[in-house]
Amino acid sequence: MHRETDTKSYAGVEDHDAYAEQLEARLTFLGRFVSDHKKELIETNLHRRTRHITLVLEDVYQPQNASATLRTCECLGVQDIHIIENRNAYRLNPGVTLGAAKWVSLHRYNQTEIDNSAECVRRLRNNGYQLVATALDPPARLPVYDTRSLPLETKTAILFGTEELGLQPDTVAACDACLRLPMYGFTQSFNLSVSVGITFDALVHRIHNSDINWRLSAAEMRLLRLEWYRRIVRRHEFLEREFDAGRIS
Amino acid sequence: MHRETDTKSYAGVEDHDAYAEQLEARLTFLGRFVSDHKKELIETNLHRRTRHITLVLEDVYQPQNASATLRTCECLGVQDIHIIENRNAYRLNPGVTLGAAKWVSLHRYNQTEIDNSAECVRRLRNNGYQLVATALDPPARLPVYDTRSLPLETKTAILFGTEELGLQPDTVAACDACLRLPMYGFTQSFNLSVSVGITFDALVHRIHNSDINWRLSAAEMRLLRLEWYRRIVRRHEFLEREFDAGRIS
Repeated sequence: MHRETDTKSYAGVEDHDAYAEQLEARLTFLGRFVSDHKKELIETNLHRRTRHITLVLEDVYQPQNASATLRTCECLGVQDIHIIENRNAYRLNPGVTLGAAKWVSLHRYNQTEIDNSAECVRRLRNNGYQLVATALDPPARLPVYDTRSLPLETKTAILFGTEELGLQPDTVAACDACLRLPMYGFTQSFNLSVSVGITFDALVHRIHNSDINWRLSAAEMRLLRLEWYRRIVRRHEFLEREFDAGRIS
Repeated sequence: MHRETDTKSYAGVEDHDAYAEQLEARLTFLGRFVSDHKKELIETNLHRRTRHITLVLEDVYQPQNASATLRTCECLGVQDIHIIENRNAYRLNPGVTLGAAKWVSLHRYNQTEIDNSAECVRRLRNNGYQLVATALDPPARLPVYDTRSLPLETKTAILFGTEELGLQPDTVAACDACLRLPMYGFTQSFNLSVSVGITFDALVHRIHNSDINWRLSAAEMRLLRLEWYRRIVRRHEFLEREFDAGRIS
């Protein structure tokens, strides 16, 4: 079972010095249960992690595809994956993710009473993302780019739909631009995880070789470090409770 | 069932004018059974097809992976796929290839009495290919490139091994260079079809934007046109026999 990343509790408080100090104390405590090797690996990865580009999957229902996609993002250092489940519950396949789900942040939109796609779009907009749809037939009013021409100065979310139908028309209509992957064959569609791989490999390469400030902030790194420590340290809930109660330090 | 491409019978004779004329007559005959729409599609694809870069899969046994890989090559216009079956019979998954197997040329190496990898290497070398291994731990003596730095002036075969073990050491040792895909996560390997997609998308983009003569020759186009016509025209064997016997023209 994969636990959804919970960062809501920190929202709005992460700039406060007192809170940062609290987190640092907790990290120091939990860090006692993390090996030096793991710590080094975590620091290396924190410094090459990005939220500047993010992936949105709408109603992707093949577990094999969804899991390979997640693994691809992890390999490329893309931290956030937004999963909209209007019709299809997103299930991960442990054999395919190879543990990748442990290190990425899944943001799930699966409330039955609301339009989950609209909710995801709203949240990404509020967080300053431009929205880019992958669509075989882009609406005329949207500019179309490929992975080399897409402007990346703004934080960017790339949206992929189901293997058969693509994104819902309303979702495409809510986007700022379309992305097209050049194809040169009889077959006019890549497998989903291949599309995601080609797209994000190209975009990650571009931001790494640009002046764009694509890395996590110090505050984001601190929070992610805590999440990752928690995924490594067994019985961390118990340990943290004891720590909070002053029974161990 | 996928039929292996048979081009051996034409080897060595394709430059002869008489033979070319014979082929043209046959194409004209079979072309009567191909719609204008299909003909146009075929011409478009013949002119963007390439054999300048080619894929070699050694002992890949997950049908899902192998099939997605083949579909990726078809989408990118990569015509030849070399399949070495030392231990694993290569099986295609029709649901994943989506008909892609119809349009690419599979070259299989699966004789039990010989070293199939060595045979594939030998044939590619004889055909003027440089051999590039994808390997997580490249041997020290081989130069290592990424998809942007790999020299592409020479015809190039990229070799991928099994998902778990990679290429056999002897196969890597027979190569001229190694290719490494940059990764920035905890997970240090992409899914096979994702690796192939990222690699070939980048290489195809590069040759398309270069002075390299990457297209098929007129003779190659003629042969491939015949193969494709044969895959479209039902009962082409019967029709061709009748044509050869002079019973229909």
